[in-house]
Amino acid sequence: MNQVPLTIGAVLFDGFELLDVFGPLEMFGMLEPAPRFLMLADAPGSVRSNQGPACVAEEALKGDTPLDILLVPGGMGTRREIRNEEFLHQIARRAKSARIVASVCTGSLLLAKAGLLEGRRATTNKRAFKLVAGLAPEVSWVAEARWVEDGPFFTSSGVSAGMDMALGLIAHLLGREASIAAANRAEYVWHEDKGWDPFAKLNHLT
Amino acid sequence: MNQVPLTIGAVLFDGFELLDVFGPLEMFGMLEPAPRFLMLADAPGSVRSNQGPACVAEEALKGDTPLDILLVPGGMGTRREIRNEEFLHQIARRAKSARIVASVCTGSLLLAKAGLLEGRRATTNKRAFKLVAGLAPEVSWVAEARWVEDGPFFTSSGVSAGMDMALGLIAHLLGREASIAAANRAEYVWHEDKGWDPFAKLNHLT
Repeated sequence: MNQVPLTIGAVLFDGFELLDVFGPLEMFGMLEPAPRFLMLADAPGSVRSNQGPACVAEEALKGDTPLDILLVPGGMGTRREIRNEEFLHQIARRAKSARIVASVCTGSLLLAKAGLLEGRRATTNKRAFKLVAGLAPEVSWVAEARWVEDGPFFTSSGVSAGMDMALGLIAHLLGREASIAAANRAEYVWHEDKGWDPFAKLNHLT
Repeated sequence: MNQVPLTIGAVLFDGFELLDVFGPLEMFGMLEPAPRFLMLADAPGSVRSNQGPACVAEEALKGDTPLDILLVPGGMGTRREIRNEEFLHQIARRAKSARIVASVCTGSLLLAKAGLLEGRRATTNKRAFKLVAGLAPEVSWVAEARWVEDGPFFTSSGVSAGMDMALGLIAHLLGREASIAAANRAEYVWHEDKGWDPFAKLNHLT
């Protein structure tokens, strides 16, 4: 396992989906040494989730703390943020300085609107798949995938899929044994096959 | 489905485990109508998780908003809170006025130390099982269970098990179809059998 803790920045915005952020953070948090988590938003302070509970952003998106991983969640707030040019500009800027850029659910639409996914393979929430694909036709959207890896981009399907992607990302960076150890500590059964996706069929995408 | 939104109070304390809180809240949040979530702590304000990120408590534990469900997470902070008499007193008071009391991971040790589980069947984190059982011998601890239901108490195994328990609780209150619908919206595969627990064996408890 690596001896230098990862620094992971998670983006918050009004209406972010709780598990999109905290599912992956829980899995990353099982690593030893534990990563440093940095919560990012337009401005430091509390940010309300889609479900209501608020979490605290510590750094403005326009800040400069170096990140190993940038994590972008989805949630109903994405509908507003895809028109927020300054927000998208800062997402693009932070993404370009990170080793890995990960999204959960409709977070991939934010990456697309930030201009990061042109010609890339990516996935998103399966209930919103056709809507998202229509809004960003320059992306090669994959309908049936728990998560998709393309270069530095790891994009997952809806909500819970973020935990499986996070474990896939741990495997990518630190090896499969590290993922299995993290999943076991969280009493989580990892869906290790990134092509496994019963929710594509359930949502009539296959 | 019910037409009156549930009110769900989630307890925060310094060092709470992120997924213990936000896994269940994500599943409950998929209900229609969406529940009202109320974050509770010693005092209103931000509360730091075990992983670092902080969330915002809206009401003091000594407050009186009526709750349908009281959710008590685990995390490293439980080691301190089991000696916090005022905290345990307020947990007991809020628990007695709720319809259902749910815990995730070592949250069940807090319920036990609040005097709520004497003679009850309950479970907890499987890595901490023997430690927890030794600290609260008056509880009938179940080693192999994803979650345990005993009267108004729903206690789950470690971290990720809280999501399965939350769906079990939704089934208890609103029927199995409501649980399946919530899980599908979250793209989560529910471990519906509360006796399913590969982590008991993994931790040499069976």
